[in-house]
Amino acid sequence: MRAIQIVTTRLSSCLRPIRFEFVSSSSSPRLISNPRRLICTAAATKSDGGRSGSIVAPLVENEEEVQKIDVNPPKGTRDFAPDDMRLRNWLFNHFKEVSRLFGYEEVDYPVLETEALFIRKAGEEIRDQLYCFEDRGNRRVALRPELTPSLARLVIQKGKSVSLPLKWFAIGQCWRYERMTRGRRREHYQWNMDIIGVPHVTAEAELISAIVSFFKRIGITASDVGFKVSSRKVLQEMLRKYGVPENLFGRVCIIIDKIEKIPIDEIKKELESTGISEDAIEQLLQVLSVKSLDDLEDVLGGAGEAIADLKQLFSLAEKFGYSEWIQFDASVVRGLAYYTGIVFEGFDRKGNLRAICGGGRYDRLLPTYGGDDIPACGFGFGDAVIVELLKEKNLLPELGQEVENIVCALEKDLQGAAATVATALRSKGQTVDLVLESKPLKWVFKRAARINARRLILVGKTEWEDGSVSVKVLSSGEQFQVKLNDLE
Amino acid sequence: MRAIQIVTTRLSSCLRPIRFEFVSSSSSPRLISNPRRLICTAAATKSDGGRSGSIVAPLVENEEEVQKIDVNPPKGTRDFAPDDMRLRNWLFNHFKEVSRLFGYEEVDYPVLETEALFIRKAGEEIRDQLYCFEDRGNRRVALRPELTPSLARLVIQKGKSVSLPLKWFAIGQCWRYERMTRGRRREHYQWNMDIIGVPHVTAEAELISAIVSFFKRIGITASDVGFKVSSRKVLQEMLRKYGVPENLFGRVCIIIDKIEKIPIDEIKKELESTGISEDAIEQLLQVLSVKSLDDLEDVLGGAGEAIADLKQLFSLAEKFGYSEWIQFDASVVRGLAYYTGIVFEGFDRKGNLRAICGGGRYDRLLPTYGGDDIPACGFGFGDAVIVELLKEKNLLPELGQEVENIVCALEKDLQGAAATVATALRSKGQTVDLVLESKPLKWVFKRAARINARRLILVGKTEWEDGSVSVKVLSSGEQFQVKLNDLE
Repeated sequence: MRAIQIVTTRLSSCLRPIRFEFVSSSSSPRLISNPRRLICTAAATKSDGGRSGSIVAPLVENEEEVQKIDVNPPKGTRDFAPDDMRLRNWLFNHFKEVSRLFGYEEVDYPVLETEALFIRKAGEEIRDQLYCFEDRGNRRVALRPELTPSLARLVIQKGKSVSLPLKWFAIGQCWRYERMTRGRRREHYQWNMDIIGVPHVTAEAELISAIVSFFKRIGITASDVGFKVSSRKVLQEMLRKYGVPENLFGRVCIIIDKIEKIPIDEIKKELESTGISEDAIEQLLQVLSVKSLDDLEDVLGGAGEAIADLKQLFSLAEKFGYSEWIQFDASVVRGLAYYTGIVFEGFDRKGNLRAICGGGRYDRLLPTYGGDDIPACGFGFGDAVIVELLKEKNLLPELGQEVENIVCALEKDLQGAAATVATALRSKGQTVDLVLESKPLKWVFKRAARINARRLILVGKTEWEDGSVSVKVLSSGEQFQVKLNDLE
Repeated sequence: MRAIQIVTTRLSSCLRPIRFEFVSSSSSPRLISNPRRLICTAAATKSDGGRSGSIVAPLVENEEEVQKIDVNPPKGTRDFAPDDMRLRNWLFNHFKEVSRLFGYEEVDYPVLETEALFIRKAGEEIRDQLYCFEDRGNRRVALRPELTPSLARLVIQKGKSVSLPLKWFAIGQCWRYERMTRGRRREHYQWNMDIIGVPHVTAEAELISAIVSFFKRIGITASDVGFKVSSRKVLQEMLRKYGVPENLFGRVCIIIDKIEKIPIDEIKKELESTGISEDAIEQLLQVLSVKSLDDLEDVLGGAGEAIADLKQLFSLAEKFGYSEWIQFDASVVRGLAYYTGIVFEGFDRKGNLRAICGGGRYDRLLPTYGGDDIPACGFGFGDAVIVELLKEKNLLPELGQEVENIVCALEKDLQGAAATVATALRSKGQTVDLVLESKPLKWVFKRAARINARRLILVGKTEWEDGSVSVKVLSSGEQFQVKLNDLE
């Protein structure tokens, strides 16, 4: 009964608008879509009958019938008009440049993955936020909500053909069907850096170093942003101490990750529902409030891996030069089921924003998918929160269009000549906006100003007969004639 | 009846695996998913019960249960491992660089758009190849099969806030659920350049010039590739001549575009089904075989817009310097409904491959969506066929990983020191692969060779005590010690 109930819930959330009506007396009911859909489909019958490769096609009544479309992108998604795109490129170029400086290779995966890749067994939010559907070949697919599972899949696929360690980075769009709140969209781009095949904390230390490098490049300092660092081994050791079964580990982490989002009583209830004793829960919550390694050592004792890893990380942070950026905080566990060791998240020190980035060690992910037992760690860094932070700090760059030359014919007859001039300049590596219509000079100057052109190149009859053009340097107003061949 | 039939067809192609069973005696039947899906969903009940934000969560029986996943990306999609990604970046950088030289601004749109945006009334293949589904908010959405409708949407949205003409480019992933044949995938990236607001052929002429520039940059010549050019106005004038209603125009174009794909008799049948007379069809097909502008002028007379536009285009081609690349071919109409004027496609002269790129004028697209009557033209250039061509011509670049330095500690204790060295070099703009484990020197040399490192920097105890490191230039074997501060 329970399974059925859930099937209904899940299907209904995907397919809610389908109703069923008995049109004939046959025992199989017929599907009638909701009215909205019926309109849409009915309209289609006019043109192509909805059939692929049909030979006999019905008449089109009115080809040019206007359908006023919604000019906005689907809710929760974005267009990138030129201004937005310049900012996106600026940000992504910093992601790429940092990754390059650290010697990481770029990779990418399909936006559309098999749904099964993302369905883990630890009650993550991600599961309920999948954009999933069935494709025309009856495959369950999903728009990726994150990049790490695809990375694991590709590493397993490559098998022995690649030499470890791998250091990979990716910048990919990810999708989550979330409730829309301030600054939350349903898609975002995520910069990931991952190290596959290194079991030591040196790997996590390098990843944090890369993020710090990125922050520094864009003007963010250690007084703006910090990293909270912990290890899932802290929780693991606590659970072991109280005899809680190992397999509850992922589930417990997911619950604890919500600690700042939902009331503590609900956290407790959720933990109780996993079967952990009240006493253990109290101790667990106590440990989570610990903010120094020394205090943690008092609770756990000095021998465990958690303490050793964390100590090493803090020692390496000093060598990498980012000590002032990181602090221990036992409450950090991250919301993904697969982390096993060090976990960290970047936060704004004013506390206004969600986590800026997050990552950690996920040594068990590859074997979970049936791959070899290869250690791994990585981080994800979204493109949304960082832009909010840059806005707040007034650090967003001013990025205008930049075209070196605007080329314009002074008469309609000379548009071909202007094309020749534009081609010559472009072949020399100069960027050229070619005016494709006959426009008054006033219009041309306005456009030149808008695109921040450095020079205006006018093609006039007399000069062109001589193979020359007029060049006006727009910053100085300086004007001269030059043979096309000499124009650099 | 007809409408109902088609609704069923369309729904079944989206939702085939859903069966209906009467579980209770109520009049509304219950949905049971197909077995595959049921398994998948049943598994889920173990963990999170399929509910969002649930507080009481069921027990996880075995967290680490191995689910051997399919390591391949979904059929018709691709991973980009580092090698593939380097090629993609090489190609995209040429797209971007050409667009920049021509003064075009980069834009992008959501991969997921409202389905209605792509549903036109002229029986295009694209319609039956949509990756479409209903999202969790009951919106009909589709993975974009092309970029132009999104561009039109964004231009309408921007309205008077942008100054015309707009010259925009985009490189975006597009999705079509096609039958898989040699080299055909279900997703590809498409480079688009578009000019919004210019009614003259100068615009189309510039677009073709941009593609020619691209070809030249990557080593493709006019003997490898050509452009077939025509105008949809040729067909329009023919249809007018035979009294065929204007609204059949788009539909006729779509049928004619299939001329090289399906037998001529089927083309005729399809044309007949639109209501065009047999005589008109014969004349139409005759005109389509015309391969010179002079012959076309004989058929259409010299007065029409079609001839005037084409003549101007060929004249401009000369001025832009790409005459040898283009030829008139009346059979080119392109497969999208929205073209209205000049159409063109790039083809390999050996005739082995599908069209490399294609485009044209689409003056009526914006008003069709309810926007102002703004003229526009553009092209799409996929990332698949061009790579096939480059392979065939042996023009694919060799692109290896390139890291300037590999930094390695000679003892475990010195890994922190190596981190300091790596950080110093990176802050100077040097790319560094930092060895994160204790490895034998032989291993380090092997890795250095694989990543094409220029220098190996070894951090040893004695040198480091002095603040120095050993530098080995790998090409020459030259080796020296240098203070960290002096290392450039």
